[in-house]
Amino acid sequence: MPRPERVKLVEVGPRDGLQNESEFVPTAVKLELIRRLAAAGLQTIEVTSFVSPKWVPQMADAVEILAGLDLNGAVSYPVLVPNLKGLEGALAAGAREVALFAAASETFSQKNLNCSIATSLDRFGEVASAALAKGVRVRGYVSCALGCPFEGPIAPEIVAKVAEQLLQLGAYEISLGDTIGVGTPAATQSLIDRVAEKVPRERLAGHFHDTYGQALANILAVLERGIATFDSSVAGLGGCPYAPGATGNVASEDLLYMLDGLGIQTGVSLPELVAAGEFISQALGRPSNSRVATALGCRQKTTE
Amino acid sequence: MPRPERVKLVEVGPRDGLQNESEFVPTAVKLELIRRLAAAGLQTIEVTSFVSPKWVPQMADAVEILAGLDLNGAVSYPVLVPNLKGLEGALAAGAREVALFAAASETFSQKNLNCSIATSLDRFGEVASAALAKGVRVRGYVSCALGCPFEGPIAPEIVAKVAEQLLQLGAYEISLGDTIGVGTPAATQSLIDRVAEKVPRERLAGHFHDTYGQALANILAVLERGIATFDSSVAGLGGCPYAPGATGNVASEDLLYMLDGLGIQTGVSLPELVAAGEFISQALGRPSNSRVATALGCRQKTTE
Repeated sequence: MPRPERVKLVEVGPRDGLQNESEFVPTAVKLELIRRLAAAGLQTIEVTSFVSPKWVPQMADAVEILAGLDLNGAVSYPVLVPNLKGLEGALAAGAREVALFAAASETFSQKNLNCSIATSLDRFGEVASAALAKGVRVRGYVSCALGCPFEGPIAPEIVAKVAEQLLQLGAYEISLGDTIGVGTPAATQSLIDRVAEKVPRERLAGHFHDTYGQALANILAVLERGIATFDSSVAGLGGCPYAPGATGNVASEDLLYMLDGLGIQTGVSLPELVAAGEFISQALGRPSNSRVATALGCRQKTTE
Repeated sequence: MPRPERVKLVEVGPRDGLQNESEFVPTAVKLELIRRLAAAGLQTIEVTSFVSPKWVPQMADAVEILAGLDLNGAVSYPVLVPNLKGLEGALAAGAREVALFAAASETFSQKNLNCSIATSLDRFGEVASAALAKGVRVRGYVSCALGCPFEGPIAPEIVAKVAEQLLQLGAYEISLGDTIGVGTPAATQSLIDRVAEKVPRERLAGHFHDTYGQALANILAVLERGIATFDSSVAGLGGCPYAPGATGNVASEDLLYMLDGLGIQTGVSLPELVAAGEFISQALGRPSNSRVATALGCRQKTTE
């Protein structure tokens, strides 16, 4: 299968990347980051999460974040909602797209959502119906698609089934998440082939964590399987909660560098994306997890 | 082209990885690292360099290193030699394999070897003849194969020509080096296809730096082009001298993790390789550059 000519990048740094930051990131900093990401050319930016601030204090400013964005413009700003209450908050704040987060592992589902996979999908069905009734788009995630921190390997059949159910409840796109970054290219290709029996490839996205350094290799592998949408996080924001200190989401800069090299169109400017990553890294007071950003930064210092 | 069933890993950590360390690494530490790498199953370990200690003080103990190894056993311990004088030292110390280091960039050749590419190959011809006459094997490197820190992109034709000349002067294997790590998968595949017109694929090796995070993706891409030998460095030892602070050689652990996942045989044990990387990282007093080592280390701490 030839590689796609064009890829859609879904930037998840402001939500998935920042959600585990222990120190609260000021709303103005988050909004400036989102503004820079949009200016770099990103058309889909997951910006926050309507969850209880008791569980995720970093996302307590969800309403203010949406209030600071043009929600009816060309850029889509999905927000994560865990349940009907979260959806109500998101709708009240003007969200035009919501994301639902299911798991392919029973243990992970219990620990993360406090219910079985089946129960979570029942609840998500209600959330999706309510969202769609208001003309709000729904995106679905399947976490632990290549492995679970508690159960180990996950059967691709289960991932396919959960993805299919998210599709049936109205999600326009299903993002398959290698939550702990353990996947390698052959397993990832097999997963895609199996899921594609239930969900058309053009409705699938890849969400890879670089915990074991495999993210770009996995993305290359599934580009060759017709997948043309990928989630990534500027500056590689977001650690792995199951391996503190290890890397989280694949860095948007590293992914874009590879896609640019492959001649694949994204509409995103690498220099502007790198600048956005520098902005948030400086605001957080620590070096970027993006190797491209590090290399370009070091090269610049060397030639100054 | 199907991926190879078996891959040869050439460990370059003790030489390419350590050569730029500013503080001298004790000979006993280097020897213990090499011993652990061999015990992990690596069959080819580049261990040192017979260069003037004035230029590379870290390799001043080359004679002592070879004296501490079984040079006639199953494991091959190549050493880098820049010229006839270096070869004489290596032969006197009992080396059974030497490596020659040519460049595909005129500017890099001038700055690194102080002569043109053509002159360097003339000199290497003498070195190779002298080595082969003593029954010593010769391995060739072509640096800057995907880009030069001074000239930018390098034409694959030049790389192919230099590789062919190294083959003609008697090298059993030519390692193509992305010295500054700028290559991406499509460029890397094109390079291999062009070089393979002059040098059989089974005589080619890939030597990727992870400066821009592309190394594993590039390796995956050329596995699909029939390349089955790769250089790597335990713990990702070795910075990029042209981007200080940035990452150097691809980490052996990350590469092995990918190959294990692909079901490709290497004969190397990941846990033992990770332990060797922990040993040298502790000796150097800094964290590993291997994402696999970091993830496994963090996971272990979490479950302790």
